[in-house]
Amino acid sequence: MILRKDCFTLPEGVIYLDGNSLGPLPRRVANRVAQTVEREWGRQLIRGWNDAGWMAAPETVGNRVGRLIGAAPGSVTMGDTLSIKVFQAVAAGLALRPGRRLILSDRGNFPTDLYMAEGLARLTERHELHLVDPEDLPDAITDDVAVVLMTHVDYRTGRMHRMDSVTRAAQAAGAVMVWDLAHSAGAVPVEISQSGAEFAVGCTYKYLNGGPGAPAFIYVRPDLADGIEPALAGWLGHDAPFAFELGYRPAAGVGRMRVGTPPVLQMAALDAALDVWDDVAMEDVRRASITLSETFITAVEARCPGLALASPRDPAARGSQVSFAHPNGFAVMQALISRGVIGDFRAPDLMRFGFTPLYVSPEDVVAAAEILADILATGAWDRPEHHRRGAVT
Amino acid sequence: MILRKDCFTLPEGVIYLDGNSLGPLPRRVANRVAQTVEREWGRQLIRGWNDAGWMAAPETVGNRVGRLIGAAPGSVTMGDTLSIKVFQAVAAGLALRPGRRLILSDRGNFPTDLYMAEGLARLTERHELHLVDPEDLPDAITDDVAVVLMTHVDYRTGRMHRMDSVTRAAQAAGAVMVWDLAHSAGAVPVEISQSGAEFAVGCTYKYLNGGPGAPAFIYVRPDLADGIEPALAGWLGHDAPFAFELGYRPAAGVGRMRVGTPPVLQMAALDAALDVWDDVAMEDVRRASITLSETFITAVEARCPGLALASPRDPAARGSQVSFAHPNGFAVMQALISRGVIGDFRAPDLMRFGFTPLYVSPEDVVAAAEILADILATGAWDRPEHHRRGAVT
Repeated sequence: MILRKDCFTLPEGVIYLDGNSLGPLPRRVANRVAQTVEREWGRQLIRGWNDAGWMAAPETVGNRVGRLIGAAPGSVTMGDTLSIKVFQAVAAGLALRPGRRLILSDRGNFPTDLYMAEGLARLTERHELHLVDPEDLPDAITDDVAVVLMTHVDYRTGRMHRMDSVTRAAQAAGAVMVWDLAHSAGAVPVEISQSGAEFAVGCTYKYLNGGPGAPAFIYVRPDLADGIEPALAGWLGHDAPFAFELGYRPAAGVGRMRVGTPPVLQMAALDAALDVWDDVAMEDVRRASITLSETFITAVEARCPGLALASPRDPAARGSQVSFAHPNGFAVMQALISRGVIGDFRAPDLMRFGFTPLYVSPEDVVAAAEILADILATGAWDRPEHHRRGAVT
Repeated sequence: MILRKDCFTLPEGVIYLDGNSLGPLPRRVANRVAQTVEREWGRQLIRGWNDAGWMAAPETVGNRVGRLIGAAPGSVTMGDTLSIKVFQAVAAGLALRPGRRLILSDRGNFPTDLYMAEGLARLTERHELHLVDPEDLPDAITDDVAVVLMTHVDYRTGRMHRMDSVTRAAQAAGAVMVWDLAHSAGAVPVEISQSGAEFAVGCTYKYLNGGPGAPAFIYVRPDLADGIEPALAGWLGHDAPFAFELGYRPAAGVGRMRVGTPPVLQMAALDAALDVWDDVAMEDVRRASITLSETFITAVEARCPGLALASPRDPAARGSQVSFAHPNGFAVMQALISRGVIGDFRAPDLMRFGFTPLYVSPEDVVAAAEILADILATGAWDRPEHHRRGAVT
């Protein structure tokens, strides 16, 4: 049985369909963070770096994340944010293809990936970010493309790209492949090692429930790791950080992708959150996730004639989220939230619903569809309070 | 009275002279972090980004840090690590001086600053990191220097550089000044705005007691901020992050130096830690710090003839730490730690002692000197357990 609501602290009466944005609090996290604050920082003080395992955490936690994305032990490290990890991966990819000029990505990619690549290209003055529509990407991998940067599951529609064939196409054209797994890790089975991709990055505050601002991850294909020249050459990626040498010598393997001091409290929260996954097989998650999303689509389409499915209808082409378009999607989502069904909204008109079988049941998604239908049928969304926007929409 | 031990949870019997590396746990932090985990993340879930102030924290916390370094409200933002902030500041400085080739720094600078600058120069292929001895730096600011990168207080010796005159020398030669305030913020009075420096960066886990892996800060001189081109162009530095535009448009002011999702738990810990400073004037901290360091030097030199002072004797030329050299400094420090006096060691032979008047009293430093004298007189440091090294020395 994949459902384990007891492992999470969900507020009474909430159906949480936003785990694709911020996962809920796993029950074990509060104690673990308190222990890290009070027993480790409070009592061990500076000795925590050795005695409490703080310094090793990026690799020990990285191995736990690695298992969920099909990465071998020692090929993943944690830290920083996804934006920084995108920068590191793309910069490393460019350094592997010195004669080539282009970073290729698609217009469906998450903006920070595009912004970071754009900033990198502006900085080097030798590269350029080239964007195409997702379906045109394979044909756009010319011999001037150094790096192909794609997000496996589209944050808006949930559309899932074919990891193996895109990677093969990139590599056949001599390009380096970088996958963003933000909407994949903990959501769908990923076999990053089998894919042959050179790099993968992702965040851990969505399906992995690591908490707001949880550390990101980066995977480097093991045969390449010792040859990577880190663009962000921080001291904790140095071979001997505490020798305090004047010059940079990268650490062996993926350890060189560490940069600065790891965020110990966030790392502890993430580590405790990963306990939930210990006996979970991603294939079982996937099966249950498809049941949830198919149930939801069927229930919504039967009850809400005004909504247009914005996600692929074929579950095999979909990650673990479903989006419906509605011209007043923002207000409809606020009305849903006010009735305990939490999803989110992405401009211009998408209501997103994430499916996370560890804490969402088929009954939950049917109930959510019924509440959505009621809001649409009664026009309850069209109230002033549902049109007010915060900093984060 | 500047001493307020009650605000910290220091273990019984410990004299903590390592607040220049990792500050101790302020008493308010544990509750605040628990609240952020359980009440905000646990109950507000995704709504915490608006309702709990998570999204605004880099600026609200930045203003609190800004007050302690003489920065105007709105000129400091928080996030990432010091290494990343060094990269951002130096890259921005290079972009302000497109015709110039050199990043100038000194061999006493903290290695990660040098490594990050070296990595940046390697990445652009247009720049070069040039290192000189600290005393030779002013004369090395030629008209090919784009950026001068210095750490205000030397991490090894505590030597404090003259912020105003170095900044003037850099700017007189047409270079951009970047100050690393890692060992200054909360340690000595800093008037970064008055100095006229273009950029400053620093960490908050030392004298500011923000906890292991606490977020870093970056200051940008307000008249320049709107013209900076961020090299790390993350979505949260975008003018409209939730519009999800394809192209990067930087936010107004220092907000463009934000990169990815802020580490909410670390930010909460830091925010609570800063409460300790609310009624503290840096001039009072400085006066008490000099009393502590002078008392310690006098007590040690009277009792420990084998030790050589490695810090400037003139307190005006020193930050808030004192280092003594000893050929077996590592083992001596371990022996000290085993007797409750916690400082740290930096290769090859330096024992460092940080002075933090908020939780260290003159009696503490005399007691520490007496224990040090006893360890040296009895040879108690020369035991196998004091020679064992961890990952972090």
